[in-house]
Parts: sequence; structure tokens; C-alpha cells
Amino acid sequence: MTISTVIPPAAPSIDLATGRLVGATRHYEKRLKDLTGLYEDEAAFDALAVTIGDEVVYEVWEYRASERPGDLVFGSSVMKPGSVGQEFFVTRGHQHLIADRSEIYHCVRGSGVMLMEHPDGEVKALAMTPGVIAYVPPDWIHRSVNVGRDTLITIFSYAADAGQDYGIIERSGGMRVRVVQDGRGGFRLFDNPAWKPHR
Amino acid sequence: MTISTVIPPAAPSIDLATGRLVGATRHYEKRLKDLTGLYEDEAAFDALAVTIGDEVVYEVWEYRASERPGDLVFGSSVMKPGSVGQEFFVTRGHQHLIADRSEIYHCVRGSGVMLMEHPDGEVKALAMTPGVIAYVPPDWIHRSVNVGRDTLITIFSYAADAGQDYGIIERSGGMRVRVVQDGRGGFRLFDNPAWKPHR
Repeated sequence: MTISTVIPPAAPSIDLATGRLVGATRHYEKRLKDLTGLYEDEAAFDALAVTIGDEVVYEVWEYRASERPGDLVFGSSVMKPGSVGQEFFVTRGHQHLIADRSEIYHCVRGSGVMLMEHPDGEVKALAMTPGVIAYVPPDWIHRSVNVGRDTLITIFSYAADAGQDYGIIERSGGMRVRVVQDGRGGFRLFDNPAWKPHR
Repeated sequence: MTISTVIPPAAPSIDLATGRLVGATRHYEKRLKDLTGLYEDEAAFDALAVTIGDEVVYEVWEYRASERPGDLVFGSSVMKPGSVGQEFFVTRGHQHLIADRSEIYHCVRGSGVMLMEHPDGEVKALAMTPGVIAYVPPDWIHRSVNVGRDTLITIFSYAADAGQDYGIIERSGGMRVRVVQDGRGGFRLFDNPAWKPHR
């Protein structure tokens, strides 16, 4: 028996004031206390967690129709401004489980960095301001960083069968570089001494 | 011999005044005279072609890194306002050659309709205003329509191996419905009597 499955069209819309995707099929939030182990300065993290541990650092609104290869997932990523010690707020970061699935992030608000690391060790940091579409090619590990004073909002899309490997960064001691304050209101990249090459 | 091909990241940016994607790898324009056979009112088309045949109706800026399955193509679609007789300007429209590849169109300027037709004959017309992300599911034929008085700009993304079948609409006598002026500054859908079911 063949079951015909016509996937219906849809038109979610993004609220630029809040980043909410109206019509999303999924929404999740990450609070500071959920992000243990991401930042270099663990004492600063612990101190901050006492005061704002329950505050949302970032949230994701997603529209997913299926997990079919060739279908797309899209949505919005919304990140508060802030830092842990000198290190700017970051998302957990991932490589896709099917590693050759690429992703795009269209920045619609704020000021960010798309921090990328290839499994061969190459690093790339792309500045994102409204209008920039950051292209994450097949295989690259990636994480968003809010380096501004406003909320960072990006609209993402990627293949519906991609999946996420959230452990790859932890297994190599963090990403190879960290994005930290430069003392003049901007950011600079800082080598992570704990980083180990991917096997 | 294995050739390692690391695809580099990139960060093209969209100019919202013109729709140009700065850093695109491809750009093409469609002039009115290139769009013979798209509109119902052929006499109105011919008359218009005499005066503005050389004017650009729509243009596409595209960033493509590869044609690998799992990679993505993205870019901007920019359409002038206007009509041929009562029928609003449209893009040629297509189904993907690999039909189960979906596509998204994020409207960033203007007022449009994403007109969709499933091969089984079902029709869907989604209104697009800035912030709306129109989701075109696997298999659906689709075309953009500018129903406003301003330029319509959308940012699209789809699987890099998808391809386009631009003939499917012509083979069924046009899309099943046309988007026409309603006489009150808006639009309405109009059944196309020349339409034949897809085989």
C-alpha cells in the first residue's frame, strides 16, 4: 500500500521585535544555568549563574514539516547580549549528524559572529550585521556569538535530515578559538589552550 | 585517489534598497520581452512589449558553492511592480527537477503572493509581506507574484542538487489560477480556463 503524503505549504512570520516565529512547530530556550562547560572562565560563570542563572541566553523557533532528505527546516535564533568574564555569549554549537548538510543564517537584527571550525582544524569567523547571510558549508562545526549590545536575531535554514551533533565541540576541548571583548567595545579572537585536534 | 574539497564559508549581504546580493556567484535578469506566453492577455502583453519590452521585470542574485546533495543554494529574488492587463507580474515559476526538494522564500520588502500548485491539482496562494517566510513543500510547483506597488524582494534557499523544471507550467497550459487585480487595489485569484491536469 502506498500512502500519499502531500505536505501542505505554510507561511510563518518573524516578529523582528522579539524574534518569535509566529507559526513555529517547536520552540526551546537555553538558560544560563543550562550552559555549563561552554565558557573558559568557570569562576565567572558560576558567579553569574547565582544571579542570572534562570535567565534565557538564547531561544530557537523552528518550523519543521518532516525529516525527509530534500525537505528544509527553518526558523529564528534569538540571543541576548552579554558575556561570561570577557567571553561573549555563545550558542552551544554543533556539526550536523549528517555532516555534509550545510546551513545558512540570515542576520536580521544585532551584531554577531558566526564562528566556524572545520574538522581539519581550520577556523573562520564571519561578522554578521543585518543583511548578512552567513553560509556554513558542508562539514563545518558552527556556533553563533552575540558581540553587540542588542539582541542578535538570525533566520536559519538547513536540510531536514541533517540532525545535530552537540558533543563534537566538547570532545575537542571547546572550539579552537573563543570570541572575547577587545577592551574597545569590539571583539577579538583568542586561542583556546584546551583545544585538541579532532580525530 | 581522494581529493579533499573543503568548501569555504562566505558571508554575502543583501542590499535592501536594490535587492542585490553583494558577493553573489550568479546574477540573471528577465526582461518583459523574455516572458512571452506567461500571461493570459496576449494582446496586452504585445502592446506592453512595444513600450517596455526591454525593462527588467525580475532579477535573481544567487550564491552557489556546489551542486552537492545536502548543500544549499541561496539568494535574492527582486521583482518590479506592474501588470499585464489585469494580471500582476509573475516569475516564470518552476518545480524542482528533483521534485521532493523544498524551498523557502523570506519576504524582506514589498507585498507578494507565493502561488503554489501540487501536481495533484491542489492550489495554494500565500500572502507575503516583510517577515513572512513562505514554505514551499516537496513537490509543489511555485511562482512569485508582485501584488503591491513597491519592489518585491524575497530571500530564498533550497537544496543545491534540486534543479528547476521550467516547462511543467507550460505543459499544463499555465498554472491553474492567475493572480489579478480586484479593482480595489488588492488581488484576487482567477481560474485559468486553459489549465489541464498534470499527467
